[in-house]
Amino acid sequence: MTNPRADRVKAVRALASRSVRRRSGTFLVEGPQAVREAVTAPGPRVHDVYVTPDAAARYGEIVDAALAAGARVRSGTPEVLDAMSPDAQGVVAVADLVHGEMGAVLARRPRLVAVLAHVRDPGNAGTVLRASDAAGADAVVLTASSVDVHNPKCVRATAGSLFHLPVVTGPELPEVVAGLRAAGLQVLAAAGSGTHDLDDLLDVAGAAPAGVPDLAAPTAWVFGNEAWGLRDEDLALADAAVRVPLRGRAESLNLATAAAVCLYASGRAQR
Amino acid sequence: MTNPRADRVKAVRALASRSVRRRSGTFLVEGPQAVREAVTAPGPRVHDVYVTPDAAARYGEIVDAALAAGARVRSGTPEVLDAMSPDAQGVVAVADLVHGEMGAVLARRPRLVAVLAHVRDPGNAGTVLRASDAAGADAVVLTASSVDVHNPKCVRATAGSLFHLPVVTGPELPEVVAGLRAAGLQVLAAAGSGTHDLDDLLDVAGAAPAGVPDLAAPTAWVFGNEAWGLRDEDLALADAAVRVPLRGRAESLNLATAAAVCLYASGRAQR
Repeated sequence: MTNPRADRVKAVRALASRSVRRRSGTFLVEGPQAVREAVTAPGPRVHDVYVTPDAAARYGEIVDAALAAGARVRSGTPEVLDAMSPDAQGVVAVADLVHGEMGAVLARRPRLVAVLAHVRDPGNAGTVLRASDAAGADAVVLTASSVDVHNPKCVRATAGSLFHLPVVTGPELPEVVAGLRAAGLQVLAAAGSGTHDLDDLLDVAGAAPAGVPDLAAPTAWVFGNEAWGLRDEDLALADAAVRVPLRGRAESLNLATAAAVCLYASGRAQR
Repeated sequence: MTNPRADRVKAVRALASRSVRRRSGTFLVEGPQAVREAVTAPGPRVHDVYVTPDAAARYGEIVDAALAAGARVRSGTPEVLDAMSPDAQGVVAVADLVHGEMGAVLARRPRLVAVLAHVRDPGNAGTVLRASDAAGADAVVLTASSVDVHNPKCVRATAGSLFHLPVVTGPELPEVVAGLRAAGLQVLAAAGSGTHDLDDLLDVAGAAPAGVPDLAAPTAWVFGNEAWGLRDEDLALADAAVRVPLRGRAESLNLATAAAVCLYASGRAQR
């Protein structure tokens, strides 16, 4: 492929738009790291991989894995790849949208789940997804009003973690909480106004008194919007609200920072 | 002020450029939250505050604090404020550059310090600064090759924390490490390849065996570049290299995430 203005090139580039992704049922995976994860993950079906000749030589294992996964691999000039994505670094792929199923997640008896409610910034959502993976979460859920996880900026921020664990998108928070609770998870809301201090919970993890959440138990964390947090009605759905201690003069934490500290506390308590 | 093309407006807007900041010795503080912190903090001198009439009515306490701090306050039309900064939200200030002094920081016997070495992304640097404040750090140091902490995107990401704790900029890493060590701090490098697992260190905090860093002791954390981490020669400067455990399939953590988890571990161990 040599023509950056070819229809196929435009069709790939158009996947930067949510409506095009929804219509086609596919999204764009950009760059060698993300494409490597996509073609080796058991999850999403990868349809097409586009590489420059240089990238094909450099990342032979990606090409091999893509072909083994049943994808079509096509060579394109650097101009073609640049036209497909400003972040291609010589490799992009088109894959089916990620469709984690809540029922399947719950059936596997998860011990740690991150729920993003009304999170709107794609970079934040992707960073939380990556931190969830690192902290050992079994799944991530984005509720109906959250950002599209297939947004290119979000996909990049996950650094491949989008393909590492089930990601469920679209359900309403009450339904998510009910399902998680029925599956035996306690539901903790992360909130600056929370009753419980995360450090206090870590102190008693494994032997928490009645009325105090035990971080060693199976847990779903609910994180709210980056600007205004969780609404009262969302907080009310949780079993308890937990605050990350603020020791200095900071008034609050960045969403992704707070989520990482909470998830790592649970991961540690559940060791 | 009514003319968005006036020289004074252009001069304020020009502070988005590093060379202009360096020449003038001042930087731009955008939005009510950041300006409030700037005019109430003991640190930086605020020269000028610009507000729209609406913002002046809404944030009377910012205007009062600015005047009490000796700043000039001027009213400008919304068009003027928009021309000064796309993130003004009706309020901007021009303040002296932040100049934390390493000697002054060390003289106060700090117990927790964050050092950013070769961190280039302003959003990352600002988020680490905010997390450092929240975790209870006594100071943040950005080494010579790091991003300018006065970059507007960095200032915004600190969410006011830039004004909460001493921020030292510009020294070389070997000099920083030598100073911190002479002041009695252990120097821990955060690195994916680290010998020590952060969770293991938390297990023995307060009673660490010989040869194992004790997180309860005064600690400086060194964090490296967002893409390539710390160079071998930087790692060699530290007393030990520590890795944040990766429990899932993630290959690494976002810099700000890793920093938050490390700093909160220290904050917890030092309680």
